[in-house]
Amino acid sequence: MNRRKIAYDLGVILMTEAALMVLPLIVLVIYKEWRMLPSFIIPVAALIVTGKILAWKKPKRENIYAKEGFMIVSLAWTLMSTFGALPFVISKSIDKGNFIRSFVDAFFETVSGFTTTGSTVLGEIASLPRCILFWRAFTHFIGGMGILVFVIAIMPKAEGSTIHIMRAEVPGPTVGKLVSKIGASARILYAIYSGMTLLMMIMLLAGGMPLFDSITNAFATAGTGGFCCLNNSIEGYYSVAGCNAVYCEWVIGVFMMLFGINFNLYYYLLIKQGKLVLKDEELKWFLGIILGATFIITTDLTFASDIVIDLPDAVRQAFFQVNAFISTTGFSSVNFDLWPTVSKAVLVFLMFVGGCGGSTGGGLKVARVIILIKNSIRSIKKAANPRRVETVRVNGRPVDEDTVTGVLGYFGLFMILGIISFFIVSIDPYTADLTTGSTAVFTCLNNVGPGFNLVGPTENFGEFSILSKLVLSFDMLAGRLELFPMLLLFSKIGSGKKKYL
Amino acid sequence: MNRRKIAYDLGVILMTEAALMVLPLIVLVIYKEWRMLPSFIIPVAALIVTGKILAWKKPKRENIYAKEGFMIVSLAWTLMSTFGALPFVISKSIDKGNFIRSFVDAFFETVSGFTTTGSTVLGEIASLPRCILFWRAFTHFIGGMGILVFVIAIMPKAEGSTIHIMRAEVPGPTVGKLVSKIGASARILYAIYSGMTLLMMIMLLAGGMPLFDSITNAFATAGTGGFCCLNNSIEGYYSVAGCNAVYCEWVIGVFMMLFGINFNLYYYLLIKQGKLVLKDEELKWFLGIILGATFIITTDLTFASDIVIDLPDAVRQAFFQVNAFISTTGFSSVNFDLWPTVSKAVLVFLMFVGGCGGSTGGGLKVARVIILIKNSIRSIKKAANPRRVETVRVNGRPVDEDTVTGVLGYFGLFMILGIISFFIVSIDPYTADLTTGSTAVFTCLNNVGPGFNLVGPTENFGEFSILSKLVLSFDMLAGRLELFPMLLLFSKIGSGKKKYL
Repeated sequence: MNRRKIAYDLGVILMTEAALMVLPLIVLVIYKEWRMLPSFIIPVAALIVTGKILAWKKPKRENIYAKEGFMIVSLAWTLMSTFGALPFVISKSIDKGNFIRSFVDAFFETVSGFTTTGSTVLGEIASLPRCILFWRAFTHFIGGMGILVFVIAIMPKAEGSTIHIMRAEVPGPTVGKLVSKIGASARILYAIYSGMTLLMMIMLLAGGMPLFDSITNAFATAGTGGFCCLNNSIEGYYSVAGCNAVYCEWVIGVFMMLFGINFNLYYYLLIKQGKLVLKDEELKWFLGIILGATFIITTDLTFASDIVIDLPDAVRQAFFQVNAFISTTGFSSVNFDLWPTVSKAVLVFLMFVGGCGGSTGGGLKVARVIILIKNSIRSIKKAANPRRVETVRVNGRPVDEDTVTGVLGYFGLFMILGIISFFIVSIDPYTADLTTGSTAVFTCLNNVGPGFNLVGPTENFGEFSILSKLVLSFDMLAGRLELFPMLLLFSKIGSGKKKYL
Repeated sequence: MNRRKIAYDLGVILMTEAALMVLPLIVLVIYKEWRMLPSFIIPVAALIVTGKILAWKKPKRENIYAKEGFMIVSLAWTLMSTFGALPFVISKSIDKGNFIRSFVDAFFETVSGFTTTGSTVLGEIASLPRCILFWRAFTHFIGGMGILVFVIAIMPKAEGSTIHIMRAEVPGPTVGKLVSKIGASARILYAIYSGMTLLMMIMLLAGGMPLFDSITNAFATAGTGGFCCLNNSIEGYYSVAGCNAVYCEWVIGVFMMLFGINFNLYYYLLIKQGKLVLKDEELKWFLGIILGATFIITTDLTFASDIVIDLPDAVRQAFFQVNAFISTTGFSSVNFDLWPTVSKAVLVFLMFVGGCGGSTGGGLKVARVIILIKNSIRSIKKAANPRRVETVRVNGRPVDEDTVTGVLGYFGLFMILGIISFFIVSIDPYTADLTTGSTAVFTCLNNVGPGFNLVGPTENFGEFSILSKLVLSFDMLAGRLELFPMLLLFSKIGSGKKKYL
C-alpha cells in the first residue's frame, strides 16, 4: 500500500478545497455578512493545516494499485464533506442543539452537495446568509466537476467501468484517446462544463431571475444536484416579482437534460464530429425515455380527475419533472407528490435510470439500463433456442461478456446495498411507511434528491435519526462513486498487489 | 410447429381437469348442496367435449421444440384457469352484475389458485358453498403438483433452467438422474407431495381444526397457495370453538417452510442419503434467511412502542409470517400491515426471495438469489483486481458463466415485467398509492398472495379494474411458469427450428 501517495493526494485535494472556499468568502464580502467570517476562515485554516501535514512529503513512488486509487477517491470525498460541513455548523445555519447532531446534519447536507444529490435537512432555506447559500450551491458545482474527471478520466484507466466511454466505436478522436494525460482531458471537460454553466446563467438572468439565484441555480443544475435557495425549489420563482418563471422553468428543464448527456458528445460537437453524436445509441435511448415519460405524464395530468391543468402547463411540468428525475437533479417546479400514481411510478422509474454515462447525472446510467434490458431479451431468446450463441450489442458492436456480467453485478450490488440500507432506515421511527423508507434510500443511492411521502418535495430529511442520516450519506457517496470505492473502503478484498493504475 | 401434438396434449390436460372436478362434486354430494350441481356439471361437460375435440387425433410425431413445450405449458395453465373459473361464475359465488366482469374476477381467482398465489377478489369467503370452497383450495393442490413436475421433470430437459436441480453435485442418485422417464419422476414427486399433505392434514385435525378446514388448509399449504376458507385467513381459527389455534399456527408455519424446500432433498431422505441434504447450500441459505428474518421481526415487534405483545406471541407470529412470505404461501395469522416499517420491509424482501428451486414456492428462488449475491460480490473483487479470473461457486463447485448470465437475465426480465405491470396497474383509480400498486404487482409476480395497504391482509383485489386484473393474472402465470413460457407465447422469438425437447 502506497500510503505516502494516498496522503499526499488527499493533502493536495484538501488545499484545493481551501482555495475553492475563497469564493463564498467573496460573496460574504459583497453582501457584507461579516458575522459569517469565522464560518469560512476556520474551515479554510483547518483545510490548509491538514492539507499541508498530509502533503508534507512528496511520495517516492507515483504508481498505485486500483484499490489505492479507489481509496483516494472515497477518502477524498468523505474528507471534503467533513470539512465542507463546518461552515454550516459554525454559522449555526444548521443547529440541532448539540454539536454531534448538528454536525451529522451538516455532514449529510455537504455530502448531498458534493455528491450532487440535493437531499436537504433544511426546512427554512431562503433566510440563510448568502455566503452559506452560495457555498451550498457551489458544492454541487465542485462535485459535478469531480465526477466528470473521475468517471471519464480516472475510471476507464482502472478498467472498472467501460460504461462511461461507451460510444460509437468508429475511428476518430475521443476525449480519452485524444489526450493522453488526465490533466489535459480534465481541462477540456472543465471548459465544456463551465461554458455550459455560464450560458445557462446568462439565460436565466435574461428571464429576470436575480443574479445570485441565476448563479446558484446554474451551479445546482450543472452538477445535477438540485439545492435551491428558495424554500419550495423552482416553484418559488412563480412568486418572485419580475421573474418570468415559465421561461426559467423551460430553461432549467432543458439544461437538466443537457447536463445528463455524456460529455464526450459535446467534445465531438466541438471538433465538428456531429455524425458521432447522432449515432450514439445511449443518447437515443435517453432522449426516447424523456419523450415517452413526458408523454405519459402529460396525458396522466391532463386526464386526472382531481387536478385541473391546461395542456401547456401539463407539458411544461411533465418535461421539467421528467428531466429533474432522469438527470437526477431533483429540482421541483410543482408538488409532484400530489400527482396521480402513474406519474409517480414513472418518476420512480426515471430515478433508477439516471443520466448517460460520462455525464454529471447519477442513477444506474442509461448505458447500464440498455445492457440490462438487452441481456434480458437475450435470455428469452436463449430459452427458446438453448444452443444459439447470442451477443448483446450496443452501438452496433458486440459488448464483451465481462462487461455484461460486470453491469449485472453492479445492478445486483446496487440493489443489495439499497435493501440493506432500507432495513436500517426502516428502524427509524420517522420512517412511518414503506414508500418513505424506500424512496429515501433510492433517492440518495441514485443521487436524485427528493423522494415521496415524508421525503417528498415539500418535506426534508431533517427529522431522520443520526443512524439513518449516516446510512443515507454513505449511500449518496456510494451511488456517486459507482459503488466500488466506498465498498472497498470497508473490505479486505483486493488488498493484494495486482495492477498499477 | 407440431400443432397436432400441442392440441393433443392440451386435450389430455383438459380431460384430466374434468376428472379432478369430480372431487368437488363428491363434496357437493356430502354437503347436499344440490343447487350447485350445474356449477360443476357444466364445466365438466365443457372440459370433456373440448378435450375430446383437441385430442381427437394422436399426433404423428411426438418430438417438439423448446418453444412448443413452453407453448403447451402456458396454454395449458391459461385454459385450465378459463374452465376452472366456470364454477365460480355459474354458482354466482363471484357475481359482479354482468358476465364479463364476473368472468374476469373468477378467472383471476382461478389463476391465483392454479398458480398457488392466493390473491383473492373475494371479501366474503366463509359463507360460500362448501363445494366451491373445496374447488378453490383444490386448485392450489393441483397447481402445486403441476409446478413440481414442470420445474423438476420438464424444465431441466429444456435446458432453460438449472436452478431447480442445483444440488450437491456428488455422485449419487437424483430424481432427475435416477428415473429416465418423466412419468416415473412425477410419480415419486406426487407420492412425497401427497404424503406430506396427508401428514399435515392429520396434524391439523389433531389440533381440533374441523376436517373440511384441515383438508383445504393442507391443500393451500402444500401448493404454497394461501386461499383460506375463513374471511381473515388463519387468524380466524382463534375464533373457532374447540380449535387449538396456537398449535395450528405452528403446524402451518412449519409446513409452509417444508413445502418451500427442494423436493429433491426429501427424495434423498427417502433413499437414506441424508448427507446430501446437509451439504445443500440452498437449504442452508433458506433456513438462515428464515432464522434471521424471524429474529429481526421478533425483536421489532417486542420493542415496537405501539404494539403490546409477549415474546412467545412475537416469536410465533414472526415465524409464521416469515414462512408465509418466503414460501410465498401468503397466509396471515395477524394483520401484519399494522406492523412497524422494519418488519414490513423484511416481508417485502422475503417476497422476492421465495422458496428453494424445485419446491412449490414461488418468488425468484433462493438459488437465484445466491447467484445474484455471489456475482455481486465477485464484481467488487473484480473492481479491485481487474485481471483476476473469479468464478461463482455454489455447493463448492463453480457455476458456469452461462448459468450466471441466465440468472441475471431472469432477474432483469422479472424486474422489467414488474415495472411495466406496475405502470399499467397504476392507471387504475383503485391504485391510490405507490405501495398498493407495487406490492400488488410483485405479490402476484412472486405468487405470494397479499400485499400492503389496499392489497393488505384484510383487503382483497376485487375493486381493481378489468385491465388490472388481467395484467395481474398474466403476472401470476408468468411468475409461476418461470417467465419464459408466458413471454414466448406473445413473441416471435424462437419460432425457427432449433432443438428437440
